[in-house]
Amino acid sequence: MTEARRWLDDAPAGLRVIDVSQAAPAEPPPEPLRREIARVALEEADAHLYGPVLGLPALRARLAAEWTAAYGASVAAADVAVTSGCNQAFATAVSILAAPGDEVILPVPWYFNHAMWLSQQGLRAVPLPTGEALIPDPDAAARLIGPRTRAIALVTPNNPTGREYPAEILAAFLDLCRARGIALILDETYRDFHSAGGAPHDLLARDWRGTLVQLYSFSKAYRLTGHRVGAMVADAAFLAQAEKVLDTVTICPNGIGQRAALWGMENLGAWLAGERAEVLARRDAVLSALGSLPGWRALSAGAYFAYAGHPWDAPSAAVARALVRQRGVLALPGAMFHPGGDPAGDRTVRIAFANLDRPGIALLAERLAGDLEGLSPRG
Amino acid sequence: MTEARRWLDDAPAGLRVIDVSQAAPAEPPPEPLRREIARVALEEADAHLYGPVLGLPALRARLAAEWTAAYGASVAAADVAVTSGCNQAFATAVSILAAPGDEVILPVPWYFNHAMWLSQQGLRAVPLPTGEALIPDPDAAARLIGPRTRAIALVTPNNPTGREYPAEILAAFLDLCRARGIALILDETYRDFHSAGGAPHDLLARDWRGTLVQLYSFSKAYRLTGHRVGAMVADAAFLAQAEKVLDTVTICPNGIGQRAALWGMENLGAWLAGERAEVLARRDAVLSALGSLPGWRALSAGAYFAYAGHPWDAPSAAVARALVRQRGVLALPGAMFHPGGDPAGDRTVRIAFANLDRPGIALLAERLAGDLEGLSPRG
Repeated sequence: MTEARRWLDDAPAGLRVIDVSQAAPAEPPPEPLRREIARVALEEADAHLYGPVLGLPALRARLAAEWTAAYGASVAAADVAVTSGCNQAFATAVSILAAPGDEVILPVPWYFNHAMWLSQQGLRAVPLPTGEALIPDPDAAARLIGPRTRAIALVTPNNPTGREYPAEILAAFLDLCRARGIALILDETYRDFHSAGGAPHDLLARDWRGTLVQLYSFSKAYRLTGHRVGAMVADAAFLAQAEKVLDTVTICPNGIGQRAALWGMENLGAWLAGERAEVLARRDAVLSALGSLPGWRALSAGAYFAYAGHPWDAPSAAVARALVRQRGVLALPGAMFHPGGDPAGDRTVRIAFANLDRPGIALLAERLAGDLEGLSPRG
Repeated sequence: MTEARRWLDDAPAGLRVIDVSQAAPAEPPPEPLRREIARVALEEADAHLYGPVLGLPALRARLAAEWTAAYGASVAAADVAVTSGCNQAFATAVSILAAPGDEVILPVPWYFNHAMWLSQQGLRAVPLPTGEALIPDPDAAARLIGPRTRAIALVTPNNPTGREYPAEILAAFLDLCRARGIALILDETYRDFHSAGGAPHDLLARDWRGTLVQLYSFSKAYRLTGHRVGAMVADAAFLAQAEKVLDTVTICPNGIGQRAALWGMENLGAWLAGERAEVLARRDAVLSALGSLPGWRALSAGAYFAYAGHPWDAPSAAVARALVRQRGVLALPGAMFHPGGDPAGDRTVRIAFANLDRPGIALLAERLAGDLEGLSPRG
């Protein structure tokens, strides 16, 4: 990421760069939520002081109730922990599940924060290639499970690819993990922008306790990225272990952010539905734009991200670099989401489109079209 | 801690328990700071969104400037990182310094969050006894350094004991650690309540880079415990590694809490001086009360804590339990701060007095006086 940002220095002078390297909310929470945060700061003394390690009981209960409804499931408040962001939920889960030398299977392209955390902890990230469909295959995963494997971690809708994993694939992964006595970590940070009208999977209506650890973030839905509030859904025995870890690291999630998340869940349902509709409309616009570009192929699109095959006979890092230099478009090369960071054969770029409005998407398509100097098209 | 809380069920009916088991601010931040937090929530969009991994540049610069003045030192903004609370700063520092199987030396009685984090990470906490003076001896520490030792971690003013470590002891520890190529982690969470008028040590005016990692918390000074804002002072090369760790766990400290801490530093200096004076006056009152109790001996007192020898010929856990049952006083047994949690010979209790006003301290002394049924006095 830092390296990709440095490429910006090469962008053509006078051309405003279209930055589709990452997508996070760029606007603050809606005004009613900001007013509520201000009210809490003034009136609720407890919001400024230590709270329970696993989070505000009201927030845990609210999330449990919404999940029970949304997934056709039975999730109790005792199955929910609030964390200081969703990455902390991942880090905590992994530290409970695995010791140095152990292995965690990650589909590739992977979310590099997951891979980085594993390597920092002396764990081995075992790559599970997903092919052009960008969907992990449970049978292929089964063949990678060894004596040190402790978990498989999936992200759906996926970061980086945007791929929404089919419900039956997720169910097969749950069965596989249960049968092999390992954990399934399911990161649903982007669930609020899933294209499915109903439940995107039925794992929480199955025999999930003891196997599944689901992760969530309040950051995207309510534009609270700076508040650091995420969540983990796991059985109560697992959360008792999480409590010990969290108590020694951050003691509790911050009080203001948790109350903001709770108010968002209670009051911003309609607003969030509008946000989701807009993101889905942008996804359609990006897919349609890519479809009309000679040589480009949309491989997947969902949540904030599209993953595309580019038309050049060149490694994706070279293409991404040329796009900045010649066109003022900053997109991450697919190679960046692979182990080692540069498989020569990769011909993809990741386009984080969520912050682009319709004119922005049209301008992006214009800039992606046509030849790039020094690169030849694929045969 | 959880166990000690359960003892509360045994307290005499009708007697209001005096809880001196822990001390954290019980009141919210002063009203002007709460108003500022409300203003930030309404007006500063950036406060709600992702910020720099190592914290707000203005907060890092402000802390560097205050430290430079307070310690007669030269600390740059680039030497400062903001973390999601001070325990996260410790956890991050340790994860940079040590790998599973490595050792960190901790004076005993120890801060149990430090010991717990080390054990959770597969590291060995090597206990350094401090004797009745409760001051660690650099020569004794030197004898504990082995091939796997990566750091010595000190807390001053100390939690749990309240002991303020003398400047020359701290200097000797810095020299020792530098000479032996290990790190000195110095947790100064309670520095704002130190009894010294001036700098409590001169480590930051010495050759500290490459050896010292100093930790701090904004929680106590500005009553921001629920905001999770701490700091780490270390050389820029160390912080470059911290940045990688923090980026994969919490991404950034929360924006509202950081702005609250900054406003506190900028505007609450006089208010904090008053808070410190009150805590120091309470410390004197506790010392004087303990001095007048037959058989009790004050071993140390500072910041929020006093450490006292009790008059009974019984393990400290039994005494603490009897104090709850017979007197309605919840204080932690000294044994709890030792490896394994129960050295039979321990005859101390820890009294976290910071939230007791003068009448509360008088009442505490009244309850500590006299015999406890079933326990015999020491000979």
